Amino acid sequence: MAFKVAERGAIAPFIVMDVMREATRREALGESVLHLEVGQPSGQAPAGVRAAAARALDRLPLGYTVANGLDSLRERIARHYAHAYSVAVRPEQIVVTTGSSAGFLLAFLAAFAPGDRVAVAAPGYPAYRNILKAVGITCVDVPVGPDSRWQLTARVLEGLDQPLDGVIVASPANPTGSMLSAHEVAELAMWCELHDIRLISDEIYHGLTYGRAAATAAGMKAAPHTVVVNSFSKYYAMTGWRLGWLVVPDDLSRAVECLQQNLFISPPTLSQIAAEAAFDCLDELEARVAVYRANRDLLLNELPSAGFDKLAAADGAFYLYADLSDRTDDSALFCARMLAETGIATTPGTDFDPVRGRRALRFSYAGSTADMAEAARRLKAWRGV
Amino acid sequence: MAFKVAERGAIAPFIVMDVMREATRREALGESVLHLEVGQPSGQAPAGVRAAAARALDRLPLGYTVANGLDSLRERIARHYAHAYSVAVRPEQIVVTTGSSAGFLLAFLAAFAPGDRVAVAAPGYPAYRNILKAVGITCVDVPVGPDSRWQLTARVLEGLDQPLDGVIVASPANPTGSMLSAHEVAELAMWCELHDIRLISDEIYHGLTYGRAAATAAGMKAAPHTVVVNSFSKYYAMTGWRLGWLVVPDDLSRAVECLQQNLFISPPTLSQIAAEAAFDCLDELEARVAVYRANRDLLLNELPSAGFDKLAAADGAFYLYADLSDRTDDSALFCARMLAETGIATTPGTDFDPVRGRRALRFSYAGSTADMAEAARRLKAWRGV
Repeated sequence: MAFKVAERGAIAPFIVMDVMREATRREALGESVLHLEVGQPSGQAPAGVRAAAARALDRLPLGYTVANGLDSLRERIARHYAHAYSVAVRPEQIVVTTGSSAGFLLAFLAAFAPGDRVAVAAPGYPAYRNILKAVGITCVDVPVGPDSRWQLTARVLEGLDQPLDGVIVASPANPTGSMLSAHEVAELAMWCELHDIRLISDEIYHGLTYGRAAATAAGMKAAPHTVVVNSFSKYYAMTGWRLGWLVVPDDLSRAVECLQQNLFISPPTLSQIAAEAAFDCLDELEARVAVYRANRDLLLNELPSAGFDKLAAADGAFYLYADLSDRTDDSALFCARMLAETGIATTPGTDFDPVRGRRALRFSYAGSTADMAEAARRLKAWRGV
Repeated sequence: MAFKVAERGAIAPFIVMDVMREATRREALGESVLHLEVGQPSGQAPAGVRAAAARALDRLPLGYTVANGLDSLRERIARHYAHAYSVAVRPEQIVVTTGSSAGFLLAFLAAFAPGDRVAVAAPGYPAYRNILKAVGITCVDVPVGPDSRWQLTARVLEGLDQPLDGVIVASPANPTGSMLSAHEVAELAMWCELHDIRLISDEIYHGLTYGRAAATAAGMKAAPHTVVVNSFSKYYAMTGWRLGWLVVPDDLSRAVECLQQNLFISPPTLSQIAAEAAFDCLDELEARVAVYRANRDLLLNELPSAGFDKLAAADGAFYLYADLSDRTDDSALFCARMLAETGIATTPGTDFDPVRGRRALRFSYAGSTADMAEAARRLKAWRGV
C-alpha cells in the first residue's frame, strides 16, 4: 500500500484519554472503578448555567455566532478581569474558543511559524507538546522540579542555552498543581517581552487554589504581547460544553479572528449563552472548591502511608503528582496494574514527561470525597508492583 | 516591535463571516436586512433534537466523552449509511467531530504532510484553502466551470500536469450547488485509489438535493482510503451545535484519534446526545427541504429578470452562484453596495475563487420563502452598480 499517513498524525496519544477508555470498559463490565484519571469536575454544570441553556433551547435558533463569540459574553469576561484581578481588559481582546484546546491551537498558529522553538515545562500538559508537533512547531522540553517549584520561571529560562520563540506556562499547573507567585508571573512576562519571546499563559485552573489566589498575565501594560488562555471547563465545571477564551494581544488579533473563522467558524452557541450565567454561580462554584480542598487534604494525609510520599507542590488545580522512583520505572504498567487490581484509574507520568514520567503518576482529586476516601483505603491495602 | 506574527496567521478571512458581521451591525441599527449570505438553516434545530438536549441538561453530567465520540452516536451514524445509502460502514470507522470544521482539520493533519499538494475546485469552500494553508499544505486551485458541472471529476484531474497528494471534492458543492453523479463519485474514488491520491469527500450537503439523491464515497470496497466528511449543520439544521463526523479509513484511524484527543479532547457532549435524535426527525427535516426547494424555484424564476441570469448548476445545497461578468469585476464592492442599498446580504465570489470570484457572488436561500420573495422584489427594483 503506497498511501501516505502524515508523520504528524503519528503524535503521541493523550494517554489519559486511553486510560479513560479502559476504565469505562471495565465499568461497563460491572467493576467498581474510581476515576482519579481525568481532570474534570464530577457532577453537573452549575444550576444557573443549565437553566440558561434550557431557556435558550426553547427560544433561540442557536445558529452560528460571529467568529470571536457573542459580544455579551466577551463583555462579561472582560468584566471578570476587573472584578477578579482588578486588571483592565477590553472586550475586543477576548476571543471565545471551543475549549482551551481551540484556544491553544489558534494561539500557536497565529504566533509561531513552522520550526519555531517553544519551551514547555516537563512535566506539563501533554497536549501542548502534541499540538505544537502537529503544526510543525518545535517543542523544547525543559525539565523542572522542586528547585523552581515545578515551574518555568524567568531564572529557569535565563539558564537555557538555546534560543526560544515562545514559552508556555501554566499556573496552577497540570500535573503538579504548582503555582507561580504574582511576582514571578510579572517577572516572567517582562523577561519574555524583553527577549521578544511570546508568552502563552495557561490560566485554565484559576479559581482552583487552596492558599493564595492565582495571578493573571492579562492586562500587563509592560508586557502587551502575552496571550492568555482560559476555560470554562475547570472552575466553572463545564468540560463537555467545550468553551474557553483567549485574551489576545493586539498584534495577533486579526490573525486569530481569521483562523477562528476558517478552522472553527464559531464556538458552540448554546455553551456561549449558558457560560454567561456561570459568572453568577459563584456560591455553587466555591462549594465545589471546598470539596476539592477536602479531597486534597484527605489525600495529602493518606497517600504517604500508602507509599506515595513524594508529592509535588499542590498549590492549586485538582492534581497530585507522585514520584514513584522507589516503586517502578514503568509508570504505564504500574497504572495499568493499579487499575486492574484496585479499580483506581490514574494517569501515568509519561503523559506529562516522556522521560522522567516513567517514574511518576498523577492523581486527580476532582471526584467526590467518598471516592477519595475509598481510593485511599484501597491503595493502603494494595501491595503494588 | 520585534514580535513575530506567524505568516500563516495571515490567512484570508472567511469573507462571509465579515459580511455577516456588517449585516448584523446594520440590523442592530434598525435596518431591514435579508440574510442571503450565511449558509445556515434559519430557525431552530428539530423539536426532537431540542427535547433530547433538554432531557440531558436535567439529568446528565455532560463531561468529556471519549475522544471519538459517544458509541451510541457512532453506531447510529453507521446505521444511517445502511439506511440512506445501502452501504456498510462500521461504527469504529466513525469519528464524531466538532463540526465538519474539526473534521477537515483532523483529516488534513492525518493525511497530508507539510508541502503536500491538494487539489480543490475553484470556486469552492474557502476554508479548505485557508485551513490547508494554516497547516502548511499546498492548495492547488483547479478552475472548474460548466464543462465539468463545476466539479473535480477524474477527467479534470487527469488533465492536470502537476503531481497531487490529495483531492477535496464536495457534492453538492458550495458555492455552486452542483453535484457529481454516482458514477462520477465511483470513478473519481477509483482514479484517486489508482494514483495513491487521498480523496477527501465533503458530503455535508447530503440530504439537500432537488433531483437525484447524492452518492456517498463511504463504504466503497475498491477505494478504501477515502475520507468522508459530514455534518449535522446543514440537513439536520444544527449549525451552532458544532457537530459533524468523519468516516475514517483504517490506515488513518489511530492518527485521527490521537489528533482528536490532543486538539479537541472530545466534541461537545450535549450536541452529541441531541444529534442522535436528529435521525428520528426526518419529517420535520424533509419539510425544511421543501422550503428550500420552493426558495430555489422562486429565485431561479425571479433572479434572471433582476439581471442575475447566469447561474451555476444548482443541483443541491442552498446556494445559487451568479456570474456577474456584465456587471462588475469587483464583487466585494458590488456586494457591499447591494447590502447598503437594498439590505440584502450576499457573499462575494472572492470567498470561493480569489481570481474569477471577482465577477461572481453567492446567494444562500436557506432563509424563509418570504425573505426570498422580498429579496427578489428589492433586487428587481435595484439598478445595481
